[in-house]
Amino acid sequence: TIVEVLRKETDRRRQLSGRKLLITAGPTREKIDPVRYFTNPSTGKMGYALAREAAEMGAEVTLISGPVTLDTPPNVKRIDVVSARDMYESVMEHFPDQDIVIKTAAVADYRPAVTFDHKMKKKDGEWEVEMERTTDILQELGKKKTTQFLVGFAAETQNVEEYGRMKRDKKNLDAIVVNDVSEAGTGFGADENRVIWMGKEEEKLPLLSKQDVAREILDRIVREIRDL
Amino acid sequence: TIVEVLRKETDRRRQLSGRKLLITAGPTREKIDPVRYFTNPSTGKMGYALAREAAEMGAEVTLISGPVTLDTPPNVKRIDVVSARDMYESVMEHFPDQDIVIKTAAVADYRPAVTFDHKMKKKDGEWEVEMERTTDILQELGKKKTTQFLVGFAAETQNVEEYGRMKRDKKNLDAIVVNDVSEAGTGFGADENRVIWMGKEEEKLPLLSKQDVAREILDRIVREIRDL
Repeated sequence: TIVEVLRKETDRRRQLSGRKLLITAGPTREKIDPVRYFTNPSTGKMGYALAREAAEMGAEVTLISGPVTLDTPPNVKRIDVVSARDMYESVMEHFPDQDIVIKTAAVADYRPAVTFDHKMKKKDGEWEVEMERTTDILQELGKKKTTQFLVGFAAETQNVEEYGRMKRDKKNLDAIVVNDVSEAGTGFGADENRVIWMGKEEEKLPLLSKQDVAREILDRIVREIRDL
Repeated sequence: TIVEVLRKETDRRRQLSGRKLLITAGPTREKIDPVRYFTNPSTGKMGYALAREAAEMGAEVTLISGPVTLDTPPNVKRIDVVSARDMYESVMEHFPDQDIVIKTAAVADYRPAVTFDHKMKKKDGEWEVEMERTTDILQELGKKKTTQFLVGFAAETQNVEEYGRMKRDKKNLDAIVVNDVSEAGTGFGADENRVIWMGKEEEKLPLLSKQDVAREILDRIVREIRDL
């Protein structure tokens, strides 16, 4: 009946009320000089869909975002960052008082060891760029977490479930959402996504819009938190 | 009078009629693996503004574009490319029968020497990325040009005029448009730009919207072609 549909919708809008949710989204940029950097194809769509949906479900949402071209969803507090180092600092600052943390950002795992203030001039021949590891933010959060429900994302191109499960356990996550970015039309930049939820339960979801994937993920988080 | 204004506008709409104009725009992406690449902050705005304006002035415009999030301007034929190699091939294919060629694209000048089909797994410690030079498209066009009026763009952070003039002469260009990307609010990603026109004439333009910069540049091209 209509009454039931409305009640269900009203219930959904309260499912995360009072919860503080931190979401990271987008890529990071790791500069060599003012006009050259390393990055990845993340557009932030998945993270922004989660932020929009969580805010609709009543959560107090903080969205820490790398450089993307998306509009901030309604009722979401957005903080813009550029590099993996910026992202790390902002996440660590906001982490302590969160209830749920979802890391969708594709944070660069390497950055140039040296950054130049001025544009480097081209030279003949090859050029060795020395790269150093960035801090693994998710792993740090896994070590630091107290009561937070911590969800990671993993983009893989092969052995996706195996790598996903390994990351979830190694990084002390409550759940990981894995997707196979080698599949056309899903993952980076796409409007749809086919993911595997790996929390206490494991479940392959069908190909869905990112907004629907966001709903499915948040429903599973709510369910697994309730069962804790 | 209104009649004069309308006549002027009508004249402007014919200034490039019958001319074939090739514009390149945006960044290129140079892959290390499916989720990591090397690029630059170009958003394509300057090139797209030129394409829009040139089409309004009656030109037959081909726009070869790296990955950007802009809409194709009306009456412009757009060709999408990703890497410097793609850009080179597309430009070389379309170059021979053009009247005017404007290279605004920020084509990567280096690319990883090796590209991996699958996402590289992180390892402990540092990582040397070997980079090799890409083909300098503008320099190739300078060597190959017959009757084309060839315009380059240069983004510099220091000695901007000196480097600009050097590039123009070394690459056999008819003109170069130089901007200082170290200045906040202009250049990469901004909606405004402060440029120096260096053709037969040299002139510092004031801070203008990119659409107005496009007009000023096309007016100067029309004038210098007429004076040839």
